[in-house]
Order: sequence, then C-alpha cells, then structure tokens
Amino acid sequence: MTDTKERIMDSSAELFRRQGYTGTGVKQIAAMASAPFGSLYHFFPGGKEQLGEEVIRWSGGLYLQLFATIAMQAPDPITAVGDFFSGAAETLRETDYADACPIATVALEVASTNDPLRKATAEVFDSWIDAASAYFVAGGIPHEQARELALSMLCLLEGAFIFSRAMRSTEPLEHAGACAVAAVRSALSHGS
Amino acid sequence: MTDTKERIMDSSAELFRRQGYTGTGVKQIAAMASAPFGSLYHFFPGGKEQLGEEVIRWSGGLYLQLFATIAMQAPDPITAVGDFFSGAAETLRETDYADACPIATVALEVASTNDPLRKATAEVFDSWIDAASAYFVAGGIPHEQARELALSMLCLLEGAFIFSRAMRSTEPLEHAGACAVAAVRSALSHGS
Repeated sequence: MTDTKERIMDSSAELFRRQGYTGTGVKQIAAMASAPFGSLYHFFPGGKEQLGEEVIRWSGGLYLQLFATIAMQAPDPITAVGDFFSGAAETLRETDYADACPIATVALEVASTNDPLRKATAEVFDSWIDAASAYFVAGGIPHEQARELALSMLCLLEGAFIFSRAMRSTEPLEHAGACAVAAVRSALSHGS
Repeated sequence: MTDTKERIMDSSAELFRRQGYTGTGVKQIAAMASAPFGSLYHFFPGGKEQLGEEVIRWSGGLYLQLFATIAMQAPDPITAVGDFFSGAAETLRETDYADACPIATVALEVASTNDPLRKATAEVFDSWIDAASAYFVAGGIPHEQARELALSMLCLLEGAFIFSRAMRSTEPLEHAGACAVAAVRSALSHGS
C-alpha cells in the first residue's frame, strides 16, 4: 500500500470507529489524512462506498491479528480471553472511550441500509468467529461448543463496548470479561 | 402526548433504530409521521437534538416495559431470560433483521461526538441495568452478583443484535441467549 493510501485508510478507520460511516465525509477523511482530495478518488474510484468496504475488511483483519497476538502470548484460553477483555478496557480508557470495535458502529448503521457494506461487516464477523472457534478447538473444546463459545465471547465484547462507551466506564467490559472467562472455563471442563 | 407528537416520536424511533441518528433527517421524520414540517419544531423547539434526546429516553422506557412484561409472565428468571432472547430473535426475523435495540446505533454514533445524547443513552442503559439487577435480586441472587449478571446479560443481547443484524441470522442471538441462561443458572445455584 502506498503511504497516501495507507493514511487515507487509517484516517477513515479512525473516523468510522469514532463517529460512524454516515457522519464521516470524504473531505474530512482527506483533511485528516493530509491527502489531496483527488487522491481519494484515485485510490477509491468507487468513492466513499468502496473506501468504506475496504476499510471494514482491513480494520477487521487488523483486529483479528490483535486477538491472534494476544492468544499466542497467553499460556491457555482462559488467560487469553481475560487478557483480551482487559486489553480492550485499557485501550478504551487511554482513548477517552473512543476506540472500541473497529466496525460495530458502521455495522449497525448499514445493516438495513447498504447491502454491500453489510456483507463486508458480516464477512469480517464470520472471520472472527471462525478464528476464535479454531483457537478454542485447538485448546481442547469440541467443535460445535467452540463456535457457540466464540459467538458468546464476541457478543459479550461488542455489547460491553456499547455500554462502556456510553457510560464512560470500564465496568461493563470487566463484568462481560468475567462472564466470558467463566464460559471458557465451563466449556473446558465439559470438553476434557 | 398529542397524536402528532406521538407519530413524530414513533417515526423517529424507527428511523434511528434502522439507520441511525446521523443518517436520519428531520424532513424524513416529518414525512414518515405525516406531520407538517413546522409541527416538528413546535413540539421540539431544540430541533433534531431535542427530538433525539426525547426519543432515546422514550424508546428506552418502552424497552424496559417489554422486559418487565416478559419477566412478569415467566415463572422464574431462567425462563424469563430465555424468553427475552427468543422474543428478540422472533422480532428480528419478522422485521427483516431491522428492529433490534432501540438505541444501540445512536449510542455508538454519539458516544464520542454528542455529549447530551451520550448522557441520555447512558441514563437509559443505567435504568435497564438497575431494573434487571433488582429483578435478579428478587429472584434470590445476591446484590453484587445480580448487577454483574444484569450487565453480562445486556452485553450478550446488544452484541448479539450487532452480529445477528449484520449476518442476517438469529444464530448469534440463540447462542448468546444460551450463554445468558447458563450465567443465570450458575448465579442462582451459587446464591441459594
């Protein structure tokens, strides 16, 4: 990726995360990225929608890498899930409750209004569910239970982001994290 | 509430839920409510922001009543929580995956961009957490554990709404519901 394109993607991702897709204009993106306005249409001939789709997939991929990194460093799934939630809480505090899920705001905005963008968010979510399921299977949890656990953990995380951002408190993330850890512990004890 | 005001509130709630606050214009609201454009500013002199704040509190209150009704009809907390998630899944299917949480989309849009609206969403969330906590306490769960459980259940629900809407599937709601029921069961067995 060229420097300019990367700056445009980066700025878009941040603006979408903080204020949503609808509320973000291409002029604001170009200004934040210090990119000439025309370069935006050079890299994204389809305009804001193409940019939106690429940013959804790109940010979704980065978030997946984040989970993989945390999982790799943790000695077991219980620690990994706990670390993931406490890392998310720390990031929220550090960013004044702005940086949570990279695509949730956009996902809710577009779910009933823009099918190409909805599909992009669904594909990102599928990739997260598959990766978390595979991780839990590798940790000794039966396949079907692993998918249920992956979905529950991700729902807890996404829901907690909504409450924590609105309430400007990490309490929801802490309780949701504890609930996710308990679910992993229970699945491990049944699977073994 | 006068008929016209109620139609304006109703249409706003539906549009905010489906397409968010930012993407909804006052002209679209007036048209959907079959209300003269001027009447909107008659009832809401503060314009879209005042309307947004009133709609957030009003829809949040209606959703609270829905939970209370389901809880009252259920014989115990385990059934109540299961029924709440399966009712939510049914509504999603019936509305082509549009009608989920009345305020989540707005909550994410405004969390970092509009403090009066953020506060309104936080107060609604607080009222839900308090009501669900009180319900669990009445069902025999110790107070502190009841709050954790209430928050976890609500995070599971909100997160599942994001995944179910994006993926156009009730699978996330079903697994999140099962996880919430398991958490209630575990809290009840520890509390008794």
